[in-house]
Amino acid sequence: MKIKTLLSHKELFPYLLKGRYGIEREAQRVRLDGTFAGTDHPKTLGNRRFHPYIQTDFSENQLELITPVADSVDELFRFLGAIHDVAYRSMSAEEMLWPLSMPPALPEKEEDIVIAKLDQFEDVLYRRYLAKTYGRRKQMVSGIHFNFEFAEDFLQQLYALSETKESFQTFKTALYLKVTRNYLHYRWFLTYFFGATPASEANYFTTENGPQEPVRSIRNSRYGYTNHEDVKVSYASLETYLADIAKLVETGKLSEEKEFYAPVRLRGGKRVADLASAGIRYIELRNIDIDPFARYGISKEQVAFLHFFLLFLSTKEEGSDADAWIEEGNQKNDQVALEHPLAPLTYQQEAQALITEMMDFAQALELPHPPFLDQLSEMLAEPERTFAGRLFSASQATSQAQTATLLGQKYHQAAWEKPYQLAGFRAMELSTQILLFDAIQKGIEVTVLDETDQFLKLAVRDHIEYVKNANMTSKDQYIVPLIMANKTVTKKILAENGFHVPSGAEFASAEEAITFYPQIAHSGFVVKPKTTNYGIGISIFKEGASLADYQAAVAIAFAEDDSILVETFLSGTEYRFFVIDGRVDAILLRIPANVVGDGKRTITELVAEKNLDPLRGTHHRTPLELIQLGELEQLMLKEQGYQVDSVPEEGQIVYLRENSNISTGGDSIDVTDDFNDDYKQVAVDAVAALQASISGIDLIIPDKTKPANEPGAYGIIEANFNPAMHMHVYPYSGKGRRLTMSVLRLLFPEVFES
Amino acid sequence: MKIKTLLSHKELFPYLLKGRYGIEREAQRVRLDGTFAGTDHPKTLGNRRFHPYIQTDFSENQLELITPVADSVDELFRFLGAIHDVAYRSMSAEEMLWPLSMPPALPEKEEDIVIAKLDQFEDVLYRRYLAKTYGRRKQMVSGIHFNFEFAEDFLQQLYALSETKESFQTFKTALYLKVTRNYLHYRWFLTYFFGATPASEANYFTTENGPQEPVRSIRNSRYGYTNHEDVKVSYASLETYLADIAKLVETGKLSEEKEFYAPVRLRGGKRVADLASAGIRYIELRNIDIDPFARYGISKEQVAFLHFFLLFLSTKEEGSDADAWIEEGNQKNDQVALEHPLAPLTYQQEAQALITEMMDFAQALELPHPPFLDQLSEMLAEPERTFAGRLFSASQATSQAQTATLLGQKYHQAAWEKPYQLAGFRAMELSTQILLFDAIQKGIEVTVLDETDQFLKLAVRDHIEYVKNANMTSKDQYIVPLIMANKTVTKKILAENGFHVPSGAEFASAEEAITFYPQIAHSGFVVKPKTTNYGIGISIFKEGASLADYQAAVAIAFAEDDSILVETFLSGTEYRFFVIDGRVDAILLRIPANVVGDGKRTITELVAEKNLDPLRGTHHRTPLELIQLGELEQLMLKEQGYQVDSVPEEGQIVYLRENSNISTGGDSIDVTDDFNDDYKQVAVDAVAALQASISGIDLIIPDKTKPANEPGAYGIIEANFNPAMHMHVYPYSGKGRRLTMSVLRLLFPEVFES
Repeated sequence: MKIKTLLSHKELFPYLLKGRYGIEREAQRVRLDGTFAGTDHPKTLGNRRFHPYIQTDFSENQLELITPVADSVDELFRFLGAIHDVAYRSMSAEEMLWPLSMPPALPEKEEDIVIAKLDQFEDVLYRRYLAKTYGRRKQMVSGIHFNFEFAEDFLQQLYALSETKESFQTFKTALYLKVTRNYLHYRWFLTYFFGATPASEANYFTTENGPQEPVRSIRNSRYGYTNHEDVKVSYASLETYLADIAKLVETGKLSEEKEFYAPVRLRGGKRVADLASAGIRYIELRNIDIDPFARYGISKEQVAFLHFFLLFLSTKEEGSDADAWIEEGNQKNDQVALEHPLAPLTYQQEAQALITEMMDFAQALELPHPPFLDQLSEMLAEPERTFAGRLFSASQATSQAQTATLLGQKYHQAAWEKPYQLAGFRAMELSTQILLFDAIQKGIEVTVLDETDQFLKLAVRDHIEYVKNANMTSKDQYIVPLIMANKTVTKKILAENGFHVPSGAEFASAEEAITFYPQIAHSGFVVKPKTTNYGIGISIFKEGASLADYQAAVAIAFAEDDSILVETFLSGTEYRFFVIDGRVDAILLRIPANVVGDGKRTITELVAEKNLDPLRGTHHRTPLELIQLGELEQLMLKEQGYQVDSVPEEGQIVYLRENSNISTGGDSIDVTDDFNDDYKQVAVDAVAALQASISGIDLIIPDKTKPANEPGAYGIIEANFNPAMHMHVYPYSGKGRRLTMSVLRLLFPEVFES
Repeated sequence: MKIKTLLSHKELFPYLLKGRYGIEREAQRVRLDGTFAGTDHPKTLGNRRFHPYIQTDFSENQLELITPVADSVDELFRFLGAIHDVAYRSMSAEEMLWPLSMPPALPEKEEDIVIAKLDQFEDVLYRRYLAKTYGRRKQMVSGIHFNFEFAEDFLQQLYALSETKESFQTFKTALYLKVTRNYLHYRWFLTYFFGATPASEANYFTTENGPQEPVRSIRNSRYGYTNHEDVKVSYASLETYLADIAKLVETGKLSEEKEFYAPVRLRGGKRVADLASAGIRYIELRNIDIDPFARYGISKEQVAFLHFFLLFLSTKEEGSDADAWIEEGNQKNDQVALEHPLAPLTYQQEAQALITEMMDFAQALELPHPPFLDQLSEMLAEPERTFAGRLFSASQATSQAQTATLLGQKYHQAAWEKPYQLAGFRAMELSTQILLFDAIQKGIEVTVLDETDQFLKLAVRDHIEYVKNANMTSKDQYIVPLIMANKTVTKKILAENGFHVPSGAEFASAEEAITFYPQIAHSGFVVKPKTTNYGIGISIFKEGASLADYQAAVAIAFAEDDSILVETFLSGTEYRFFVIDGRVDAILLRIPANVVGDGKRTITELVAEKNLDPLRGTHHRTPLELIQLGELEQLMLKEQGYQVDSVPEEGQIVYLRENSNISTGGDSIDVTDDFNDDYKQVAVDAVAALQASISGIDLIIPDKTKPANEPGAYGIIEANFNPAMHMHVYPYSGKGRRLTMSVLRLLFPEVFES
């Protein structure tokens, strides 16, 4: 198979660097001072029995973060980032992830390293076996497992070009086997650059069985986490690989297939045996040390380079004896791994030759240079620029543990900086980010079907739910948002069901509307376009109006819509009740943009200070919006006798807007616990009358201490589909209400029952 | 109670002519030649056990059409018209409604007048009793029952102005009683103008017990359908009214309360006894003859006049003895009813005085003159202008039966002229009109919640369904139309579930899209805006394209949307599968606007002729649209070497449009029966994968004779929510598919089960 020749076909070029990727990253939990946490796996993380993203590895203290399979490096890191955010913010805020492969100082007593408390007894049994065979300390090392698959398009085209008579599956298996053998042969190359376990911390090596000097990679050396020496598996063919593993298990040298700790595993399906029928579908690289300088333990650049490297390896000639070829690689790798981090590489010339060859390869195939490629020569010349070299050097002033602690704190701080956002998904609406966070936390599989359209697929096993804008789901009927979008229809249905709504009428012409005047002239009323948008076109007459004023209001409303509504005015305070699944989960009071004077600072200064709140931002990507000082705000100030440089008295509330929308800088105040059940019941019943599962319903309430069944106690002015949720989750003041979790509970009750 | 004084308060003016109305109209079914039909009640009309709109009266041959309660005269007639349309088009097309109160010539044998075949045995028993007591022939007369209620606002304001200490209910009851007594006293006035039963037809009067000469109103005279003479009920108070009726039933003079055939019934609830607790809520006028000259048996003008008359009567002083006051009215009415249709009214002076008084009344209250008021004086002077006078005069040349037959034919023809439209609702979208037709036909209660928004409420007993645009319902989930509105999401879900969709990619920038070029350059592909609208912005390259052409297409698509799709081109014929409730109920082939040459006429002439089809019209209020000869069409002709005055050869199909949309004059061809089940199953399964109940799904099929599971047998290019239905119900050619009925069956299975 002359892969090198085949790759040079131009048709293949678009697909050369397309692949599918997955990462598993293990990490020990430590306190913020870098000491071993030893606490239980966070309860907030739902059920480990099925959690696809966040598991425990060997120990209860060791998280395993697992990305889904991604079709691009960007997609991979979007999930890796998100899962890290969720992990950090699901642990105690006093804990963080240890950023090294080698564990932090371990407990002195081995039994204080607690085996993961898993539900499935067989999982616990396996870990007990490992503890007995290898010791608990040895199991505490963490790493990156990188799953890699060439793109289907790439493989199909390559197969077609090869004009081989063998089957596609055979072709593909042979390709992966070749790449694997070469990877095992050349992996010393990666160990030099990316090895990052120069030293261990206290109580990892208990006897003198570790290296006595700093090295490039303990983990990739003979002192690392490997099988016993008599565990040998041949990669000459898939058959030998499978037969050898089967024999090892049969003879008891391995307890199970998964105990085979090779630097590369061949993967076909869930079990090793599936390989025989399915062939190799992807490979799992297991020799990658955690990069202490990468927030997520591995960088995007390294992954991109690895893909390039694997593609390159597919074109490299192999030695004629597969086992000898790999054995040579093993020995070289052990040697390189045990070199001092700052020592020059023994195989410097060979490494330089490889770098040059890769450069030529990239040029021949018109590939953009992958990250790292251009730096390798320098890193080769200066060992202190390798990962191990950097960590070793940085640790010289204090200690490796101290260096790791500082790095860990940095990543911890970054994860908590804007706790309402989710790394990787910041371009999406805030409510969707929070929903994604909660879904990942509870182990609900998430797929973004359309990022700009806020369209998600959520799944738990076979149960699939589609969600748009965080609360448009299968649990509401198609007709329900259509009802709520039509104010006249909503009011008719509510009134028919006995709820108090402002009385009024709809008009399709100004003439018609004017004839209605005698019926409303003497009471407070509101004129508004049928389809209102942020209050535009609305006129409020709290105590009636002259015919001329009414005519003007009608004209203003008709400028916005073909139909207008004229309604009685209800006086009182407007509250937003968020109803879901027959419950009121949050009640919010919204107050127009405002500042409170202190007798010293100007309004401009007060606004600037209030805008420092990290909850405030722009474009609905923060729970609150920045307060503006634009034309509208200045007009509003002027009406109150202020200017932007006025200094309001201490305690004086100065409003900058008439409307209370959060989108124009308003404050959100959670008042859920201030209400008695009777008003909540009204909201729940009204939403039920509209047949809705999820609705934000706005009630005008003059005095919430009065019973809801008193005449005039409330009036319903609007029911909203797709009501904003983020303002309830992160209010300006009062308790946050995790409505996104309520949505998930509605969609996946089974996740919350167990 | 000085109602007259109270009414003059200006606050009351807006409410004076507001009321609530209901009409029951009975009619005999006859053949188109005017002979008695004698057929069974039409099966299409669903179940009479609960049908709110179309019932049978005494005889199986006699329809009773019942409007719901309406808040305005316009609303009343919208329903009266619709129910008539439904009744006409649910009967055999060879039958029509007899337009007179007096029945057509009846069967010679009394037993050939078949009692209505009702389910409830008590209903049949009651009719058997009536047959025995009054004879079957007497029961065959038809009339208008007019239910009238003053507007609640009017009554409330009047009550407030009256400053009475009695309760609102007592006040209201007294008002209705006064109006009723005056109505009974003065009803001779209406009999003169609106009486319309001058003569009977064969076999109505079997002995010499009818009038020997033509009269104004047989039905309102002693020869009409009245109780026996010993049935006397006092209207002096509600108590006397109720006690008298109760006594008549107790002593067996009436079999039931409803056998009391007064010209006015007092109504409170379902049963007479409810009156005692509820008071009078409305009154039922039962003395109105069918107006032969009104398409629906009574005109809007007459109803408006009746309301005015009742308001006027509320202000008229009564005689001191209630019973004597009514008895005087009864006698005068009998006298007037039995006058010759062309004879001057005996009480001409009294009538003229009333007219003058009404004129003054209207003027004092600033009321617009109701219809008729200005003509009454002339009608008084010229009896041939009264209803009876007109019918009598018209019948002179031939016969009353012949005159009635011609009128009946006229109304029959009007009902069938545009069978896809529904009287009263023609402003609504066609699919909604058809759905309303079907709902009324099956006895599902319909309420238009918002006419311009096509928003309906449908109800069967307690089961309520809301419907927008004829197929947006509770049976689909909120998320489903959102999925279908997003082409990328739809395709992802379909592909994931194993359906064939064009492969492709979505791009948010032209730059990104251009880098995709190598992957599609050599095969057919389509470039389109993500959100397509009537094919705008789409470029199709059936056999690949140059980079320059591709770049141009990308720019065109981006002019329409922020995101574009590039997809492989599928060749074949596009079919629309209409899927509902897991079935394919219709398959449609759409062909671009076209004409077929005859070797003689020009394209302009051919278009004009094709546009004569009554199915063609404009603005989606007809099943097909008119073919245009605008710029686009002329350009298309030019490309084929034609001009508008070209004469295409015989049999030559000339296309006027590239796109096949019905909205641009395309032809709809039903091909439902041309397909094997396998393609239907694909459509059903694909719609199920999208979790939809209702969808119009578009499949490209190169050869429909090949099995659907062959590779490339089909490709799904779009799934549509709210798919057009009218084009399937009334296709250009092929069998119509009543999809609106499918929607009702989905919503109300209980209606179709029985």
